[in-house]
Amino acid sequence: MPDKDTSIYIYGRNPIIEALKDEADRIEKIFVRNSLHDSQLSQIFDLASQYHIPISHVPGSKLFDLVGKVNDQGVVALMSEVQYQDFGQWVDTIDTSTYPAVLLLDQIEDPGNLGAILRTAAAAGISAVLVPKHGQAPVNAAAFKASAGTAGRIPIVRVGNLNQAIIKLKDERFWIAGLDMDGEQLLWDLEVDRPLAFVIGNEGQGISKKTLEHCDYRFRIPMEHRVESLNASVSAALLCYEWKRKANA
Amino acid sequence: MPDKDTSIYIYGRNPIIEALKDEADRIEKIFVRNSLHDSQLSQIFDLASQYHIPISHVPGSKLFDLVGKVNDQGVVALMSEVQYQDFGQWVDTIDTSTYPAVLLLDQIEDPGNLGAILRTAAAAGISAVLVPKHGQAPVNAAAFKASAGTAGRIPIVRVGNLNQAIIKLKDERFWIAGLDMDGEQLLWDLEVDRPLAFVIGNEGQGISKKTLEHCDYRFRIPMEHRVESLNASVSAALLCYEWKRKANA
Repeated sequence: MPDKDTSIYIYGRNPIIEALKDEADRIEKIFVRNSLHDSQLSQIFDLASQYHIPISHVPGSKLFDLVGKVNDQGVVALMSEVQYQDFGQWVDTIDTSTYPAVLLLDQIEDPGNLGAILRTAAAAGISAVLVPKHGQAPVNAAAFKASAGTAGRIPIVRVGNLNQAIIKLKDERFWIAGLDMDGEQLLWDLEVDRPLAFVIGNEGQGISKKTLEHCDYRFRIPMEHRVESLNASVSAALLCYEWKRKANA
Repeated sequence: MPDKDTSIYIYGRNPIIEALKDEADRIEKIFVRNSLHDSQLSQIFDLASQYHIPISHVPGSKLFDLVGKVNDQGVVALMSEVQYQDFGQWVDTIDTSTYPAVLLLDQIEDPGNLGAILRTAAAAGISAVLVPKHGQAPVNAAAFKASAGTAGRIPIVRVGNLNQAIIKLKDERFWIAGLDMDGEQLLWDLEVDRPLAFVIGNEGQGISKKTLEHCDYRFRIPMEHRVESLNASVSAALLCYEWKRKANA
């Protein structure tokens, strides 16, 4: 059973179709009353299949248990409750004079890593976590759980295209920094007297080539014993807390 | 299918009974030829059940696929290949004059966390990771995978009882340090001019009470937004790299 504190049930056909079109990554699961078949449901099944959302066929009494006495039209969806912010709106609210730091996630695939990153970012006093709309683990129940319920304590900002967001952030006087095993500077050379955006790379590939070219700084974490990279949430944590150590000094 | 580079198959009844008694946490799975029943197999089933090791009933041809033409006596076990070191032997080899650091894992339950910790510890130049025999995630295929294949690059030392190991380490001039949300000192106050043993607490409970009492230092990681703790592998990483930053300075 989902935790009622972290998820919400939505119901009705059009709301669920709209949610599938706009925010599919927030939908965990769809419950459909047994032996219903029609064209609207077919559309729901097609969209769910497209976004790899599981469908559960259940008796009507199960739907009643989930949402109570409402006109559910035979379909209920479980949605994660975490709200995303719009990049355009968020960017208008940032005050760069305080030298904030934000994280940019470059296709983090594992919900466990995503949750751990959201938790660490909040703890370190990072101002926001920017996540691409596509190719990225959703802030779903698994990520929420891995964040120990802290996902959403700082803004999660959805961006259509990471590189375009970077260009906009540069316009706003942010400096872009990434971790790279061939980086020129040690992580410990980080300077925090400026607004900073830290790019966290994908678990397997690291930061994508084009995004790495946008980085003003490429930092290296020294590693021994032929270890070539660290877990994505570990790398993010070392970056966040190197920033915090200096920002609080 | 298991990765041949990280696991081995052992076969025969007595070897598997011995392995179950001595190194159950290295056994991933046991394969038994269909429709065999006898008292020796009952003993294997009992031990496997006790240690939560899955049993798979398979045709004899499957056993042949796994181990080839050997006298398998109808039973094959998949074991993780990572070798543990004996605490008594390991402790005799350490040179405390170089101010080494070691990790003590206090019942890390999640193989993903364990793997990430082993990887970070190797990268940070930690000398060894000490793991209790009981109540601890095994260095199995999942942990090996999470370590990105780096588990075993530094010694993994098995201890019967964590608190007794701590007493022995103190005899050897180690100072014991743990993370605690009520710790007196900030992590950034860590001094590295002495041999150090860092205790990494369980995911849910943190460091157990008795072990915390053994700590010479209790460090606090500053956290904002009402976050009370970090992921175990993140906490371990911040500790390991705070040590490395200073030890390399």
